[in-house]
Amino acid sequence: MKEIRVGLVGCGFMGKSHSNAYLNVAKFFPLKANPVMSVICDLVKSRAKECQVNWGWKKSETNYKRMLRSGKIDLVDISTPNINHKEIALMAAENGIHVASEKPLAMNSNEAREMVAAVKKAKVKNMTFFNYRRVPAIALAKQLINEGKIGRIFHIRAVYLQDWIIDPKFPLVWRLKKELAGSGAHGDLNAHIIDLARYLVGDFKEVVGMDKVFIKKRPLVAEEGSLAARGKKGKGDVTVDDAVLFLARFKGGAIGSFEATRFANGRRNYNRIEINGSKGSIVFNLERMNELEYYSSAESQHVQGFRTILCTESVHPYLNAWWPPGHIIGWEHTFIHEIYDLLEGIAKNRKVYPDFEDGLKCQQVLDAVVKSAEEKSWINVDEM
Amino acid sequence: MKEIRVGLVGCGFMGKSHSNAYLNVAKFFPLKANPVMSVICDLVKSRAKECQVNWGWKKSETNYKRMLRSGKIDLVDISTPNINHKEIALMAAENGIHVASEKPLAMNSNEAREMVAAVKKAKVKNMTFFNYRRVPAIALAKQLINEGKIGRIFHIRAVYLQDWIIDPKFPLVWRLKKELAGSGAHGDLNAHIIDLARYLVGDFKEVVGMDKVFIKKRPLVAEEGSLAARGKKGKGDVTVDDAVLFLARFKGGAIGSFEATRFANGRRNYNRIEINGSKGSIVFNLERMNELEYYSSAESQHVQGFRTILCTESVHPYLNAWWPPGHIIGWEHTFIHEIYDLLEGIAKNRKVYPDFEDGLKCQQVLDAVVKSAEEKSWINVDEM
Amino acid sequence: MKEIRVGLVGCGFMGKSHSNAYLNVAKFFPLKANPVMSVICDLVKSRAKECQVNWGWKKSETNYKRMLRSGKIDLVDISTPNINHKEIALMAAENGIHVASEKPLAMNSNEAREMVAAVKKAKVKNMTFFNYRRVPAIALAKQLINEGKIGRIFHIRAVYLQDWIIDPKFPLVWRLKKELAGSGAHGDLNAHIIDLARYLVGDFKEVVGMDKVFIKKRPLVAEEGSLAARGKKGKGDVTVDDAVLFLARFKGGAIGSFEATRFANGRRNYNRIEINGSKGSIVFNLERMNELEYYSSAESQHVQGFRTILCTESVHPYLNAWWPPGHIIGWEHTFIHEIYDLLEGIAKNRKVYPDFEDGLKCQQVLDAVVKSAEEKSWINVDEM
Amino acid sequence: MKEIRVGLVGCGFMGKSHSNAYLNVAKFFPLKANPVMSVICDLVKSRAKECQVNWGWKKSETNYKRMLRSGKIDLVDISTPNINHKEIALMAAENGIHVASEKPLAMNSNEAREMVAAVKKAKVKNMTFFNYRRVPAIALAKQLINEGKIGRIFHIRAVYLQDWIIDPKFPLVWRLKKELAGSGAHGDLNAHIIDLARYLVGDFKEVVGMDKVFIKKRPLVAEEGSLAARGKKGKGDVTVDDAVLFLARFKGGAIGSFEATRFANGRRNYNRIEINGSKGSIVFNLERMNELEYYSSAESQHVQGFRTILCTESVHPYLNAWWPPGHIIGWEHTFIHEIYDLLEGIAKNRKVYPDFEDGLKCQQVLDAVVKSAEEKSWINVDEM
Repeated sequence: MKEIRVGLVGCGFMGKSHSNAYLNVAKFFPLKANPVMSVICDLVKSRAKECQVNWGWKKSETNYKRMLRSGKIDLVDISTPNINHKEIALMAAENGIHVASEKPLAMNSNEAREMVAAVKKAKVKNMTFFNYRRVPAIALAKQLINEGKIGRIFHIRAVYLQDWIIDPKFPLVWRLKKELAGSGAHGDLNAHIIDLARYLVGDFKEVVGMDKVFIKKRPLVAEEGSLAARGKKGKGDVTVDDAVLFLARFKGGAIGSFEATRFANGRRNYNRIEINGSKGSIVFNLERMNELEYYSSAESQHVQGFRTILCTESVHPYLNAWWPPGHIIGWEHTFIHEIYDLLEGIAKNRKVYPDFEDGLKCQQVLDAVVKSAEEKSWINVDEM
Repeated sequence: MKEIRVGLVGCGFMGKSHSNAYLNVAKFFPLKANPVMSVICDLVKSRAKECQVNWGWKKSETNYKRMLRSGKIDLVDISTPNINHKEIALMAAENGIHVASEKPLAMNSNEAREMVAAVKKAKVKNMTFFNYRRVPAIALAKQLINEGKIGRIFHIRAVYLQDWIIDPKFPLVWRLKKELAGSGAHGDLNAHIIDLARYLVGDFKEVVGMDKVFIKKRPLVAEEGSLAARGKKGKGDVTVDDAVLFLARFKGGAIGSFEATRFANGRRNYNRIEINGSKGSIVFNLERMNELEYYSSAESQHVQGFRTILCTESVHPYLNAWWPPGHIIGWEHTFIHEIYDLLEGIAKNRKVYPDFEDGLKCQQVLDAVVKSAEEKSWINVDEM
Repeated sequence: MKEIRVGLVGCGFMGKSHSNAYLNVAKFFPLKANPVMSVICDLVKSRAKECQVNWGWKKSETNYKRMLRSGKIDLVDISTPNINHKEIALMAAENGIHVASEKPLAMNSNEAREMVAAVKKAKVKNMTFFNYRRVPAIALAKQLINEGKIGRIFHIRAVYLQDWIIDPKFPLVWRLKKELAGSGAHGDLNAHIIDLARYLVGDFKEVVGMDKVFIKKRPLVAEEGSLAARGKKGKGDVTVDDAVLFLARFKGGAIGSFEATRFANGRRNYNRIEINGSKGSIVFNLERMNELEYYSSAESQHVQGFRTILCTESVHPYLNAWWPPGHIIGWEHTFIHEIYDLLEGIAKNRKVYPDFEDGLKCQQVLDAVVKSAEEKSWINVDEM
Repeated sequence: MKEIRVGLVGCGFMGKSHSNAYLNVAKFFPLKANPVMSVICDLVKSRAKECQVNWGWKKSETNYKRMLRSGKIDLVDISTPNINHKEIALMAAENGIHVASEKPLAMNSNEAREMVAAVKKAKVKNMTFFNYRRVPAIALAKQLINEGKIGRIFHIRAVYLQDWIIDPKFPLVWRLKKELAGSGAHGDLNAHIIDLARYLVGDFKEVVGMDKVFIKKRPLVAEEGSLAARGKKGKGDVTVDDAVLFLARFKGGAIGSFEATRFANGRRNYNRIEINGSKGSIVFNLERMNELEYYSSAESQHVQGFRTILCTESVHPYLNAWWPPGHIIGWEHTFIHEIYDLLEGIAKNRKVYPDFEDGLKCQQVLDAVVKSAEEKSWINVDEM
C-alpha cells in the first residue's frame, strides 16, 4: 500500500483540525504511505462542499454509509459529535476499514465496549483522538517517567479549566443538552485529563466525584450559533454539568485529583497537570504547551528547583520535523503528530495508541465519576 | 491599660516566630498599648532560658500554670503542640487572661467547642493563629472580594504542598505519630487552607475526602532531631496521614478541592489558592507571598489577562508600615501583622479575628474530612 | 486578477517557511486573489526539485533570471542569503514583478537605496519579510500604542539572544564569514529588533555600539552542515561578530538599548522587548509569542500590575482565522499572516508594510552601529 | 572586645533599615561580639529622639563630631545623604573608629580616594553598604560562579528600573537637584548594579553611556514631602538624570549593558541581572529576591532549561539562621546579613567586603559614565 485513502466525517471544529493535519503531515514527516484526502462527509451538503473546496478533499458526501461501503476508503476519521461515534465505527469495522474516532470514544462504556469488540473482530487499526498525548512536552514527560527520572509516582493533580459560559445570557446551545452532548465539561474536558493520567500514571482503581450546574436555566436558541434565534422567548433547562470534580486512587498506588469546568474566569484552555514522584516532579500547562516544567531531587541541594524546558530541540519528540530551537509550534500541530503516528501504524502494520481500548478505559472512568456523583459514594472503575 | 503583659508557652519554631513578632511589632506599627515580653515558658528549662536570653523575655518559666495564676499576665500565647492547647486555654480563661492559640485550635471539634465556651464565658479576647490571613496579598484578595471585583464565587482550589518526608530513611519523629500529633499533613497544612477558604469564600457545607500513607514504616528514633538516635535498630509504624485530599460544597453555592501533602517533590511550602468568580479570579502562592494574581472579566476583551500585583504599595494592607514600593517582606512578618491586630483588639476592646469560633469551624471541617475518609462517604460539616 | 503567480527563490530554512505559508494561507484567510505556487528556484537542482515535490510547486528552476523573464510570475519571493537580494529585486522590478525579500534587505544601505529606487520606479509592490510584525502579540502591542494606552514612550529595551555557537568546536560555517554573511548576530538578529523598534517606537536618531567576537578561530569545514568536513585539518578566522550591543536615541525623544548575541547560554530564540511609556508598559518575548504583558498606570493603585494577555481571542489581530480561545499558534504562522497581508496588498492595490523603505531604514541603523563600533563614537543614522 | 558600640548617623529610610538590623542581628546569628546600639545621630533633634525611642538607641545626638570624639563608639554607620559621607568617614578614621558607609561611597572618585586613603592609614575596618551582595540568591550566584558552574563569562545585562517620578506633577524634591543629590538614577541605582557586576563578573575596563532627563521642569516645593508646599507657584529645573544607560567592556573579556531609570512604568524596584557564561547562565530579579534562575548546558539536552531555585534551604547562604524551606525572607534582611558580616569582621579582625576600595571602584565607573555622556565617547575606567 503506497497510499492511505481517507474519509473524514464531520465538518466542525475537529473536521477543520484534522483536514489541516492530513494536508500538512507529509510536508514535514517522512511517511511510508501518504494520505489521500478522498472523501469529506457531512450531513449538511453545503458544509461538506465548503470543506471539500477549502481543504482540497477530492469528493464531498452527505451519506457516510455510502462512503463506507464504496470500497474506496482505507481509513475513516470520525469527527462528529460523539452520539454518532459508535454507529460509524461499527460499520467501518464491518467493512474492514481502519478507524480513528474523536474523544470521548462513546456515549458510555457499553457503547465503547461494543466498539472495541468490533475493531478487534475486524482486525482493523483503531485510534481514539486524544491529541494531547502528542504535545511534545507531554511526550517528553512520558519519556522522563520511562527513564526513571520521576521515580515512584505519589500524586497527580489535573485540571482542565475554561470560561466560555459564565455569562448567564449565553444561550442553551446543543452542548448544554444531555440528549445531544451526553455530558458537559466532564466528557469534553475530563476525558482529556483522564487519558493523560492513564498515559502518564496508569490505570484508575476507584473514584469519588461531584458535579455542579451553576446556571440552571438559559435563553432558548433555535440552533447552535444562530444569533437570530437568541431573541426567542423564554428559557430552558441546562441538563449537563458545568463542572465535575473527582478524587481517584490508581492501581499503582498513586492518588489524584481532577477537575473540569467551564466557569474558571480567565482560564481559556488551562489544561494543567502536575505529577510528583519519589525522584522528581513535572508540570504541564496547555496554554504554554511548548514548555515542560521538571524538578529533580537527584541534584545537589543548593541548585534544586523547577526548570522550564522549552521543548523545541531536535531531540524532543516530533521536533526534528519542525523548526530550529526556540521556534515554537501551535496547538494544531498535535493533530499532525497524531495522524503521523496513525498513518505509520497503518502502513507498517503496528499497533496505534491510544486505541479504542484506551477510549473504553477512559469511558469507564467517566462513567464511574457520573455514578459516584449520583450515588454520593466511591465507585470501583473496573465495575463500569 | 498602657501595656499588655505577654506570657508565651512553647519555645519551638512557633515560639521563635512569635517572639520575633512581639519584639518588632511596636517598631513598625503604632500601638495603643505596647506588649511587654514578660514570661517565656517551656517544659524544658534550658530551652526556656535560651529563648529568654535571645529574645529578651523578662522571665523564663517551666510551669505554665504558675504563670497563668501569677496575676502578672494579660495575654497568653499558646505556641505548644496542639495536644496542650485546650488545657492552657481553659486555665487562661478561668484566670481572665486573653488567649491566642496556634492552629489547629484543638485535637478535635469537641475540644474546640469547650475552648470556645470557656473564652465566651470568661469574656476574654481570643484568637487562633491562622497567620496567612495576614499575608498582605491575602488581605488584598479579601478586599477585592468585598469590593465585588470577583462577583459570585464558583470555585476554589487550594493545595498546600511540602516535600520533607519523601526519603524513606527519614525517621519516625513525633509528628508522624498520631497520639502526639493528632494528624499529619491534614491538621498541619489543610488547617491553613480550610481557614483561608472560610475567610475568602465562606462556610463549608459538606465534604468527601481520602487520606494516604505512602511510607508505612520508618526508622525508629529516640527523639525528634536526634541524629545519634537514627542508628537505633528497627522500624515503627507511621500512624498519621502523609496526604489528605478532599472535595467540598460551600453553603453559598461554591465548590472546591483541597489537598495537603508532604510528598510533593520540589514543593517546599507551596500553599496555592485559586478562586474563580463571575467577575474575576484571584491566585495566591505562599512561595511568592508578596504577589497576588488577579483577573477581571470587566475589562475590554483585548486586554484581559491575569496580572501580578506586587503587594508592596502603601495602599496595600499592612504595607504602610514597611518599606517603599518593590521592597518585599518575609514570611515572619505575617506574625507581626497578626500580633498587631491582636494587641489592638485587646487595647481597643474590639473583636479579634480569626477567633476561637473560627478555630472550631476549621476543626469541624478537619474532623468531617477524617470521618469521610474512614466511612468513604460525604459528611455534613455542621454535624461534627 | 484572480490569482497571484508566485516564484520563490531559495530552498533553505526560509524557503520552507514561506512555502508552508503559500500552501496554507488560503485555507484560513479569505483572499481576494489566491496564490499559485508556480515556480520554486534554487541554484542546486536537487534541492529545487525536492522542494517542488514536497510543497507542490508547479515547476522547479535553477535560473532565477529565466523565471523572472518568463512573464509567468506576478510576485517573486526572495528567500536567498542576503548577498543575492539586490540583484534579484532589481531584475524583478525591471520586469514589473512584485517583490518580497527576506531581511535584512541588503548588504548595506547603498544597496538598499538602489532597491528602493528600483521598486519605486517600477511601481511594483514591495515588502521586507520582518515577520515578527505579524506576531499577534506584537500587532496587539502596536494597537495598544495607537490606542494611547502606553502614552509618551520613554524607553525601549530589546534583546535577541541565541546560544548556538558557544561550543568552540562548532565549525567555521559560511554564516561566520563576512564575505558571505555580511555580519553575524547583527544582521541576523538586530535587524529584527531594530525593525520592531521602528514599528513600535519610531525612527532612530543616533546610535553608539560595540561588537565582540568571543571565539576568534574555529575548525575549518568544507561546507555548511557537512559532518565529514569537520575532520578537516586546521582552523580559520571568524570574521563576523558574535554579539553586537548598542544604545540609541529616537527622533521622538525615547531612548533604548539593543543587543544581539549567539552566546547567551540557555536562550534559544529569546527576542524580548520591553517598552515603558507615561501611561503603561508592554513586554514581549518570542519564546512565549502567544502572550503579551501589559501594565497600565491608569488603574486603581491597589490592583496595578503586569498582566499576561493570552493573545488567542477572536478580537486579537489575525486570531479570528485560527482556533478557539486558549489554542495557541506557532512560529510559522507569522509567515502566513505576512503573506496574507502581502497578497491582499497586491490584490487590492494598497501599500504593503514593512516595505523596502522600511528595509532601507533598518539597514541604515545596522550600518550606523557598525560604523559606531569601528569609530568608537556616536553616529547619526540619517547620515548612513 | 565583647561588644561593639555603634553610632549611627542619619534617621531617614536607611537609618530605619540599619537600626532594624542592629536590633535583630543577634537574635538570629551567633556573634562573637554583640552590637550595642549606643548613639543615634541626626541634625534634626526630634528625628534623632524619635528614632532613639523607637529602636532603643541608648542616646540621641545632633552633632556627629561630638559623637566621634567621645571615645565611646567603636563603629560609625553613615546613613546620611552622600554629600556628608566623606567628612564623617575621615573624622571616624582619624579617631580610630571602624566605619561603614551607605552607597554610593562619595560624590565622586576623588572624594572616594581620600576616604580609602584615610581608612587605610588608620587601619580601621571599612565597608560600603552595597546590601544586595547579601541577598542569599546573589550570594548563591557568586557561589555558582566560584564553583565553575557558569564557566567563562560572556555577558552581563543589568537594569535597575523604578517608576516613582513619571507624574509631571511630582515636585522638585532635593533628590532631583544636582547640588544636593550628586546625580539621579545613576548614583542611586546604577551604583548597585555596577557593584554587583564587579562582584560577579570582575573589574570594568571601559564604558560608553548616555543620560536623559524626560521631564525638565517640575513644580517647586518648599521641602521634600511637604504637601502644603506643592501649591508653591512656579517650576524649577531638574538638574539630575532621570535615566542613565551604558555599555561596558570588562577586563576579563566579558561585555555588558546597564540601565538605571525612574521612568519604567510598572517597575517598582526591578533590579534584574542576567549573566551568560560558557557553561551556564543565571538570572536575578530583586522583586523576587528569594529566587535565583539557573541554567546549565552541562545537562542532557532534552532536560535543559532555566530552573528557579527557591533560596530558602539551610544550605543556601545565610538561610540557616532563618526559617524552614519555603519560608521566604524580606528586603530588610539583607541589612541584617550585611551587619552580621561587618560585626564578625570587626570581632574577628578580618577583612570586610565590599570595602571602601570597592566603593571607590564603583565610583570610578559612575564617574566614567558621566564623563562619557558629556563627551559622547568611550572612557577608560582606570583613568577616573
